[in-house]
Amino acid sequence: MSVVVDMLTEKLALARVASRSVAQLSTKVKNDVLQAVAEAVEAEADYLVAENYTDVTAATQAGLDAYSIDRLTLTPKVLAGIAGDVRKVAALEDPVGAVTGMRTVESGITVGRIRVPFGVVGAIYESRPNVTVDIACLCFKSGNAVVLRGGSEAIHSNVALARVIHDAGVAAGAPRDWVQLIDDTDRALVHRMLGAKGDIDLVIPRGGAGLINFVVENATVPVIETGAGVCHTYVDAYADLDKAQRIVVNAKTRRYSICNALDTLLVHAAVAPQFLRALYPDLAAANVEIHGCPRTLDILGESPRVLPAVADDWGKEFLALTMAIKVVDDFDAAMDHLHTYTSSHSEAIVTQDYTLGQRFMREVDAAAVYWNASTQFTDGAQFGLGAEVGISTQKLHARGPMALEEMTTYKWIVYGDGATRPL
Amino acid sequence: MSVVVDMLTEKLALARVASRSVAQLSTKVKNDVLQAVAEAVEAEADYLVAENYTDVTAATQAGLDAYSIDRLTLTPKVLAGIAGDVRKVAALEDPVGAVTGMRTVESGITVGRIRVPFGVVGAIYESRPNVTVDIACLCFKSGNAVVLRGGSEAIHSNVALARVIHDAGVAAGAPRDWVQLIDDTDRALVHRMLGAKGDIDLVIPRGGAGLINFVVENATVPVIETGAGVCHTYVDAYADLDKAQRIVVNAKTRRYSICNALDTLLVHAAVAPQFLRALYPDLAAANVEIHGCPRTLDILGESPRVLPAVADDWGKEFLALTMAIKVVDDFDAAMDHLHTYTSSHSEAIVTQDYTLGQRFMREVDAAAVYWNASTQFTDGAQFGLGAEVGISTQKLHARGPMALEEMTTYKWIVYGDGATRPL
Repeated sequence: MSVVVDMLTEKLALARVASRSVAQLSTKVKNDVLQAVAEAVEAEADYLVAENYTDVTAATQAGLDAYSIDRLTLTPKVLAGIAGDVRKVAALEDPVGAVTGMRTVESGITVGRIRVPFGVVGAIYESRPNVTVDIACLCFKSGNAVVLRGGSEAIHSNVALARVIHDAGVAAGAPRDWVQLIDDTDRALVHRMLGAKGDIDLVIPRGGAGLINFVVENATVPVIETGAGVCHTYVDAYADLDKAQRIVVNAKTRRYSICNALDTLLVHAAVAPQFLRALYPDLAAANVEIHGCPRTLDILGESPRVLPAVADDWGKEFLALTMAIKVVDDFDAAMDHLHTYTSSHSEAIVTQDYTLGQRFMREVDAAAVYWNASTQFTDGAQFGLGAEVGISTQKLHARGPMALEEMTTYKWIVYGDGATRPL
Repeated sequence: MSVVVDMLTEKLALARVASRSVAQLSTKVKNDVLQAVAEAVEAEADYLVAENYTDVTAATQAGLDAYSIDRLTLTPKVLAGIAGDVRKVAALEDPVGAVTGMRTVESGITVGRIRVPFGVVGAIYESRPNVTVDIACLCFKSGNAVVLRGGSEAIHSNVALARVIHDAGVAAGAPRDWVQLIDDTDRALVHRMLGAKGDIDLVIPRGGAGLINFVVENATVPVIETGAGVCHTYVDAYADLDKAQRIVVNAKTRRYSICNALDTLLVHAAVAPQFLRALYPDLAAANVEIHGCPRTLDILGESPRVLPAVADDWGKEFLALTMAIKVVDDFDAAMDHLHTYTSSHSEAIVTQDYTLGQRFMREVDAAAVYWNASTQFTDGAQFGLGAEVGISTQKLHARGPMALEEMTTYKWIVYGDGATRPL
């Protein structure tokens, strides 16, 4: 164990040195590197697919479910998609070096802020090997060196991808150690990463709730959490019910295993009978199972698809074709429910009422609040960021979709001419 | 113990409810509250000084040093100063509600960010009771409810201050539970605060290295570290030596017990004999003790004031009238020293050379980098922020002096008209 921990310590030291060079690269060189990385991912498809096959075979033998194996599998088409994402990152604006608020203050010093990279960013993630390339390229474009720790089920894929992008990047002008993959699955290494204050400036965990919680509980390095979302949509008495129906169906069924999918529908009692009866056929057609409050059951009737909600259904992230429905007396009752059960990810109101819509947008505390739109829009590309490192579920530093700017920080720059501070 | 922990749980729940009201207050009401708080701190001076006397007496009996007792002591003059600071906070611009980047994207949704409070901010601090008022008012103006945990040595002062500002604030329109003081010194409460994910949105520790490290190691809630600074000033071969001398003397001696005070002076070998000999009388006059490298000792001679530096002197925060001096061969050697020993707080170069100055400003990774100025400027008021909650020593969210804007986060606001996300 101490050998692999020593290995990590060395990798972190190399990453620190590399981070100083990456931080100083011009936008032009960074983009050249990313174009070379994109080309290499496509050119080395045979090698990458072959290495990935080892992981897929092992996962199949271990009995991993079909969905997870699908996410694990690399094909030439998947690799072309990954390369396309890298080219998109190359096309994004470089946030590094922007100076803001520069002014000369009373003492005579001139002071402002300049946007700078974090330095060394660590990523701890599970399963999908495309994350290896995505995060490496987003961190690089934002001027950071990156240390990657993928899941053991994708270890061969990740090693191969890291090798390909590393070599292509270095050939195109990246410093030698710009990306470091931890190619050992010993869990002691995750502990070491999480305690590497000063060696790692920021850790981003991406994966299931177990991984995220483990990271948050054990980290002394700064962390940006990503992950869980318990998403509500409130259909008000003054909603346009046709729009509400489209929004709810989209929020639940477009994708159901992602963090911005609808979990609990709240419906004003005045429109609940009409709305739920109109909505139900769409949900049934999409195989959605409903866990309803007593009033919902009164309206829809209990059936194999419409079951009584239990206490745990409120505030639950289903990640499945299951949703909870609650009929509420009014806007305030909906807000009370939200305040109790929100995970502060994505929350929506559907209403034509100006005052209630404004109140919802102002009072609901979430990374993204929606008025007459589906919560499934919470995504870096959909919000105009071009890409995303993940969706932050915390309030510190970044909230919601994170892209290049969120992978940077700032420093104060101060110019004097022999300036000394008075007593 | 479980009784006091229950008490804290209740306080946190009250603070959460209050935070929703504070977040919605108009700037006018918030400023009225702060003016009332300032008046009350002055009007209740007799009561506050009397309560403070209990703490001061206990501290004196416990043998606390004179400097700490001075910081602990409240007088009518100190209270007038605290009230003045509150009025300054009232005069600062309110960051809450600013909308940025609003645009309608391809899908038709209109999306942007709005600046919002964190919600409930926790502060854990030591000694100086003025922090109780400062942090409460900065958090309130930025729309947050606040939970305060001061040091046991100031418990009577803090309870009295919290009572005065709470009551004055509520009378002027603040929600009932806008400020909560934990009036029990049981350490279990700090543990409970640090683990109160979801109940506290942000914790700021202010105090010595022991407190800060304890908080960072035990917190699962988001933390912004403040505190330690190992500050370097590099005097280059092309420095204006008169300016360099003024800058170094100011950076070391204006105040020596604060985080932005000079710890290690690096001097280019070409100017070291001339510069150090000219500098020495000023340092001697200010009773500064020098821990020098061998070349420094060659120049200044060993004496009771000029001692050989030991390995631990490099990278040490002295917080005393002691400084380390190292003669370096060139700019790169200075940078190597900095990369090894910087705490990334405040770092300065003194040079007339354009290229080296630019390199220093670009390449040094610190909260504040200085060109031809004293590091003692690192301060919220000096940087034009009007006040400060503390000086962040981390890179996540806020770096260097933190004031109102740094006590806020943002949320995404999304407007549609029945918008659904395509597959």
